[in-house]
Amino acid sequence: MGPHPAVAAIRLAVRRVLHDVLNHHQTSGARPHERISGARPGRHTSGGRPGQTAERLPSPLVSPLVLVACSGGADSMALASALAFEAPKLGVRAGGVTVDHGLQPGSDLRADEVVLRLRELGLDPVESVAVTVGRGGGPEAAARDARYAALDAVAERHGAAAILLGHTRDDQAETVLLGLARGSGIRSLSGMAAVSGAGGRYRRPFLQLDRQTARKACLVQSLSVWDDPHNIDPAYTRSRLRQEGLPALEKALGKGVVEALARTAQLSRDDADALDAWAGQAEASVRDAAGLLECAKLYALPPAVRRRVLRRAAIEAGAPAGSLFARHIEEVDRLITGWRGQGAINLPGKVVAQRQGGRLVIRQG
Amino acid sequence: MGPHPAVAAIRLAVRRVLHDVLNHHQTSGARPHERISGARPGRHTSGGRPGQTAERLPSPLVSPLVLVACSGGADSMALASALAFEAPKLGVRAGGVTVDHGLQPGSDLRADEVVLRLRELGLDPVESVAVTVGRGGGPEAAARDARYAALDAVAERHGAAAILLGHTRDDQAETVLLGLARGSGIRSLSGMAAVSGAGGRYRRPFLQLDRQTARKACLVQSLSVWDDPHNIDPAYTRSRLRQEGLPALEKALGKGVVEALARTAQLSRDDADALDAWAGQAEASVRDAAGLLECAKLYALPPAVRRRVLRRAAIEAGAPAGSLFARHIEEVDRLITGWRGQGAINLPGKVVAQRQGGRLVIRQG
Repeated sequence: MGPHPAVAAIRLAVRRVLHDVLNHHQTSGARPHERISGARPGRHTSGGRPGQTAERLPSPLVSPLVLVACSGGADSMALASALAFEAPKLGVRAGGVTVDHGLQPGSDLRADEVVLRLRELGLDPVESVAVTVGRGGGPEAAARDARYAALDAVAERHGAAAILLGHTRDDQAETVLLGLARGSGIRSLSGMAAVSGAGGRYRRPFLQLDRQTARKACLVQSLSVWDDPHNIDPAYTRSRLRQEGLPALEKALGKGVVEALARTAQLSRDDADALDAWAGQAEASVRDAAGLLECAKLYALPPAVRRRVLRRAAIEAGAPAGSLFARHIEEVDRLITGWRGQGAINLPGKVVAQRQGGRLVIRQG
Repeated sequence: MGPHPAVAAIRLAVRRVLHDVLNHHQTSGARPHERISGARPGRHTSGGRPGQTAERLPSPLVSPLVLVACSGGADSMALASALAFEAPKLGVRAGGVTVDHGLQPGSDLRADEVVLRLRELGLDPVESVAVTVGRGGGPEAAARDARYAALDAVAERHGAAAILLGHTRDDQAETVLLGLARGSGIRSLSGMAAVSGAGGRYRRPFLQLDRQTARKACLVQSLSVWDDPHNIDPAYTRSRLRQEGLPALEKALGKGVVEALARTAQLSRDDADALDAWAGQAEASVRDAAGLLECAKLYALPPAVRRRVLRRAAIEAGAPAGSLFARHIEEVDRLITGWRGQGAINLPGKVVAQRQGGRLVIRQG
């Protein structure tokens, strides 16, 4: 008798990602540490072993290390259990890391407990890292920034080939809705990538898997899990979405909503990538000999491409990407499509856009 | 003292559209009837005046007629009132039409009442048309198909330059969510167009205006309105979305959700248009001398463009667009990106896709 279907599903998802990590590892022909640190000779930001960077070997000398980032919740505990099961069969070393955000009393004890659980699964090395969460961009963004900085540091210190993250299809659906609420276009609808970070370090094996499967896999494997109270705290936008928004949407639109949102993420990501590539090529073609943007050539571009070119130009001129909204770009676009002698447009980062003699000039003023 | 802000808002929205209709009307230099019937000589499907089709005049001889499609509900009654106020000032004739879908007992009397209301506003001509709603594609789609067919016929019979529809920003937000639930990509996120139909016949002046403003405009103008019981009938997906789904989403994500969804619609529409244009050009470049699709050239395209080329090719081969889902195209795409000798892929409309000697052959089998 094989494993329970939920357990089979999580293992298959992890096995596929491990195969992919191994392919990259073997193709690159580099030691894991080298790939992760960016393969730029001599550059080691944390805990590097400088003696190795100059070497280029045709095949890896050591078996790659894959870490799981684990909060102790059902998704990442399921992920850890699948990694512990699959890694040895493929000659991959499996380790784990848990991040103590220090946001709740006793979070350090919680982290210690997660470390114990991961060791019980056979993972090695396992460690807990404490971070200090700042305040930038709201509590969720600040916690995320601190967490990824810590995971990056751990990955580099251990020379890990990959860090697995437990985000599920449900998380993806929530992320798409959060992006939708920004109303800033298809890039914000594209959710989380299956592969992201420096050198493709972060992998999300469960992005096509629903949360219920992960939960079930923990249950049938008798893994005790920790339910983060943040996940149901209505102070957090994502919690409200998870507890009320998404269920109401499912009730109205049917059970397929989560899957539809996840598919929208993938399609939007590909579309956004293609349009960004187009805009990158178009930008060079609309500049005159002096490098200035020619209004007539901008006018001839499709609106979707023109707006991306304008956005790129504003960012190049110093406007911070995060503060540059669709309405800013629309206003600059009207200098091209609705020219009636308007004055300079002020953009974030003290960047100014104005039309001068058939050219669009965007610069820090 | 000027009009109430809500009344000012609906009038401004209509005025802008009427200006645009007049520009088109004058630029085309054709009689309204000619433009609407498609300007193909000798083709008149309903109530044509054949003697006029051959003439091309430099300026319109008659003032254009603009019709409002009115259900008697708040949105379209507000629209009718604004049209009645603005049209005479611009030398535009204003008329109205209401569609009796025959789905509720007494719907004919309701239609007669709407006709009276529209005449009271000073619209002329005003008429009611009865339609028979079929069953194709579900009750909402069937009613919509019957309605637009009737409106098309009325427009052609009267030689109307435009038909105004009362869809608001809230309707647009609902349409985006309905598209999102299909999970079929950004075209289905692009909602309703401000201008659509043959020759740009249909106009939606209220697409940037919220439902509350239309309702308020009726209230302050003492226009009695009819609340269609369908709008709150939970048997309809859109009603569930309106009554529960969208309010829950607003509660989780904040009041800006409707605006964000409407902005997403516009951005997605422009993006989808640009990518469709790219795919149109790419399709020609990936065919060999015999007109067959070359797999190597398809492989080199960005995934978003390649999938659109494959979709176009499947539709050209006879697959019905409405039955062709993202998963079909993904399967065909794997013949290009994940070739391991798979067999032919069956698509809707008895269309078969298979790889043969470096070519992708898609044809009705």
